[in-house]
Amino acid sequence: MSKKLSGFPEFLPSERIVEQQVLDHLRRTFELHGFANIETRAVEPLDVLLRKGEIDKEVYAVKRLAAADDEPAELALHYDLTVPFARYVLENAGKLDFPFRRWQIQKVWRGERPQQGRFREFTQADIDIVARDVLPFHFDVEVARVMAEALAGLPIPTATLQISNRKILEGFYLGLGITDPVAVMQVVDKLDKVPAERIHELLVEQGLDASQADRVLALAEIVTTDTSFVGRVEALGVEHELLAEGVAELAQVVDGASGVDGVVVTADLRIARGLDYYTGTVFETRLEGWEHLGSICSGGRYDELAKDRRSTYPGVGISLGVSRLLVPLALSASRSVPSAVLVAVDDEDSRADSTAIAQQLRARGIPTEVAAKADRFGKQIQYAEKRGIPYVWFPPTSVKDIRSGDQVEASPDTWSPPTSDLTPTILPKEQLS
Amino acid sequence: MSKKLSGFPEFLPSERIVEQQVLDHLRRTFELHGFANIETRAVEPLDVLLRKGEIDKEVYAVKRLAAADDEPAELALHYDLTVPFARYVLENAGKLDFPFRRWQIQKVWRGERPQQGRFREFTQADIDIVARDVLPFHFDVEVARVMAEALAGLPIPTATLQISNRKILEGFYLGLGITDPVAVMQVVDKLDKVPAERIHELLVEQGLDASQADRVLALAEIVTTDTSFVGRVEALGVEHELLAEGVAELAQVVDGASGVDGVVVTADLRIARGLDYYTGTVFETRLEGWEHLGSICSGGRYDELAKDRRSTYPGVGISLGVSRLLVPLALSASRSVPSAVLVAVDDEDSRADSTAIAQQLRARGIPTEVAAKADRFGKQIQYAEKRGIPYVWFPPTSVKDIRSGDQVEASPDTWSPPTSDLTPTILPKEQLS
Repeated sequence: MSKKLSGFPEFLPSERIVEQQVLDHLRRTFELHGFANIETRAVEPLDVLLRKGEIDKEVYAVKRLAAADDEPAELALHYDLTVPFARYVLENAGKLDFPFRRWQIQKVWRGERPQQGRFREFTQADIDIVARDVLPFHFDVEVARVMAEALAGLPIPTATLQISNRKILEGFYLGLGITDPVAVMQVVDKLDKVPAERIHELLVEQGLDASQADRVLALAEIVTTDTSFVGRVEALGVEHELLAEGVAELAQVVDGASGVDGVVVTADLRIARGLDYYTGTVFETRLEGWEHLGSICSGGRYDELAKDRRSTYPGVGISLGVSRLLVPLALSASRSVPSAVLVAVDDEDSRADSTAIAQQLRARGIPTEVAAKADRFGKQIQYAEKRGIPYVWFPPTSVKDIRSGDQVEASPDTWSPPTSDLTPTILPKEQLS
Repeated sequence: MSKKLSGFPEFLPSERIVEQQVLDHLRRTFELHGFANIETRAVEPLDVLLRKGEIDKEVYAVKRLAAADDEPAELALHYDLTVPFARYVLENAGKLDFPFRRWQIQKVWRGERPQQGRFREFTQADIDIVARDVLPFHFDVEVARVMAEALAGLPIPTATLQISNRKILEGFYLGLGITDPVAVMQVVDKLDKVPAERIHELLVEQGLDASQADRVLALAEIVTTDTSFVGRVEALGVEHELLAEGVAELAQVVDGASGVDGVVVTADLRIARGLDYYTGTVFETRLEGWEHLGSICSGGRYDELAKDRRSTYPGVGISLGVSRLLVPLALSASRSVPSAVLVAVDDEDSRADSTAIAQQLRARGIPTEVAAKADRFGKQIQYAEKRGIPYVWFPPTSVKDIRSGDQVEASPDTWSPPTSDLTPTILPKEQLS
C-alpha cells in the first residue's frame, strides 16, 4: 500500500505551502488583469485527444471498471488545458462574452517516462484570450506582459522569456525562395538538441542550397534583449511582406513585455515551436542555471484555436508548467501548519478556556490551534517548536514568542502578531532547522 | 467534440466565482483552525481502492494507451480523499508531526449513475486529525466545530449537523442482550428509506424479540437539539459501560459544536453509517428543503484510519461534498470577470496610455482590464456592462460608475472603488439581470 508511484509527486505540508503561495500569486496576478477563472473536467473523449495531440501513446485512458472488458475506452485524462479550453469555448460560445480572457490552473496527466522536471501528473497554469472571428494583435502583447509579471513575483531563478514570431520565419524562408517553410521550421526547431552543422546538412538534404541554409541559420542566431533584432534581420537582406509583418509584431511584444524586474525578455529567432499549430507570436521560457529542464512556460497565437459551423475562434495564450517551475526551488516554509499561535492547556478541565481564547484570536484573522494535550508547558512549547508555530499563549493573558523567549501580557481581543508572522514565510531550505 | 458528458459538470465563469468563494471560505476556516493543506495524486493502485471501498464497480480504471491491450489496469482514480490520506500518512509517517491536522480539497471520481447532486466528477473538502497510537477525544469535538463554522459562512439553506456515536448503539444493543450489534446497526441504518414497521420485522428476522426490536427503534427515534437526549436514553432503561461512554462523548460533541449561527446541531440516534468503519462519533448533515440530496457532509472517528507494522493511526474527520452543496445555490456573481474597472481606449495609438492607467490601478490591488478595441465610448461602456464591470475609466482622469451614471475626476494613483465593488458579489440569480 505504501508503494510510491514514480512520476506522481506529492508534497509534505511545508512544501505544499510553497506551492500554495506560488498558486496564490499566479491567481492574484491573473485576476488583477481581469482574467476569469474556469475549470474543465479531467476527462475528454479519447478520440478528441488523439486527433489534437502529437503525444498519442502518452495518453491515459479511463474506463469504468463496470464496463465490459472488450468495451473500448471512450474517455482519457487531459494532457494539457488547451484542448479542453477549445472544447469549452465551443460548447459555451453562446454564453461567453468575447474576447474571453480566462485563467485555468489544473492538473494534467501524461504517461511519459518520469525524469527531473517531467512528471506523469503535474499542474499547469494557463492564460488565454480568445475571440470570435477577429482577435486584435495587442492581446499578444498582453499575455506576454501578464506572464512576465506572474513570473517576476515568484522566488525562482531569473526567467528568460524567449519570444519569436512564426511570420518572421515563414516570411524569411519564402523570401529566400524556399517552398516548404514548415518543413524547414521543424528542422530549425531541433537547434537546441542538434549542432548547427548537422542542421545545415539536414537543410541541404531538404533541397536548400548552401547559401539558403547559411541564411536560415544566421536568422536563427539572432537573440536580442530589445528591438535591435529588427536591424539584424534587415541586415540579412531578405524581403517579404510576411517577414515585415512578423518583425513589426515581435518588436511590439518585446517592448510591451520588457521592464518587469527579474524577468529577461528576448527576441529569440531560434524559437519556432515547430510541431504546434501557432500562426504568429510564439513563446518559450527558460530558467537560469536550469536550462536542462526545457521550457517552463510556452505558448503563442493560434489563428484557429477552435472552429464551429459559424465561426472561427482565434486565440493567444501561454501555459506555465507549475510543477516543473517548482523543481529548482530549494525552498520550504517557516512552519508546517498555518497556525501563528498555539494556545497552551493548563489541564484538561480548562480546555474550554483555551478554546475560547483561540476563538477570540481566530475571529480577528489569526490562525490558531489549541494544544493537543495538557502536558507540562515545556512539552507544549516543543509541540509548537516542531511545527514552527512562533507564539505560545498561556491562558489567560500571557503570550510568548518562543524564538526570542520574549513573553508579554496581552488580551486575546487586542493582541496581534506582526504581519510577517501571520502566515508562513518561504525560506531557502538550508535556513530552516 | 462538443458533446456534454453527463455527470461531469462544468461552470460558466460567473458560476465558477460562486464556487471559488465557497472554496476560499472553506480554506480560510480550516487554516484559521491550524489545519495544514495537502494534495494527493489523483490515482491510487486499483487493488487498494477495491480492498478499501464498497463501491467496487464504480471505480474508474486508468491505463496508459501505450500499455498492451491484455495488460490489466493497475491504477484507478480515487473515489474519496480518505483512502489516499491514509496511504499518505503511512508513506510519510516519519516526516509528519502527530497529531497531524490536515485539510484537503480535490476532485474525486465515481462511475455512478448521474442524478441531482450525484456526479461522476465532484469536489470534496475534507478535514481530518490523525495521531499515532492515541488520539484524544477532544478532537472529535474540534472537527465537528470546525465544520459547523465552515458551513455557517456559506450562502446555503440551514444545515443540520446530525451527530451520533456508534458506542451508544453498540452499548445499547449489547445491554439489551443482542449478540450481533453490527448486523442490527446495518438494519437500523435503512430507517430513512424503509418504514419503521418493516425495520421491526427485519430485526425480528435477525432473532430479536419484539421488545428488543421496540427498544432498538425507540432509541433510533431520539433526536434532540441539545444534550437532553441523555435523559431520553436513560429512560429506556438499558445499561452498559459502552453505552454510558458513548452518551458522555456525544454530549460533549453536541455541546462543543452548538452555538454557531445558522447551523443546527442535533444528537440524532438514527445516524449509524452502518457500512463504514467508524468506531465512535459519526456525522451526517442535511440541508433544509434539500433532504433528498442526502447527506452533504459526513464522517466520524476511526480507531484505525491506517496501520503499519509498528503503529496504529486513529483518526477523526469529516468530508464535505462541495459539488453537492452547490446544487441548491441559485446564485451567481455580480460580474463574470474579476475586473472592477475597464479602462477605455481613445484610439489605438493611445492604447499605451490606457494600459499605463490600468497598471497604476492594479499596483494598488484593483483588478482592471483595458478595452479590447478603440470603439466609440458607448460600445466600450456596453463591453463593461455585459460583463458586469462596475466602473469605466476615461483617460486620463475621469471615472464613471456605469450603474448610477455618476462620473468623477480622479487620479489612478489615489482613486479606489468601495470595498464592496473590489471583488464580485454573490447574488441570487433572479436579482441579476
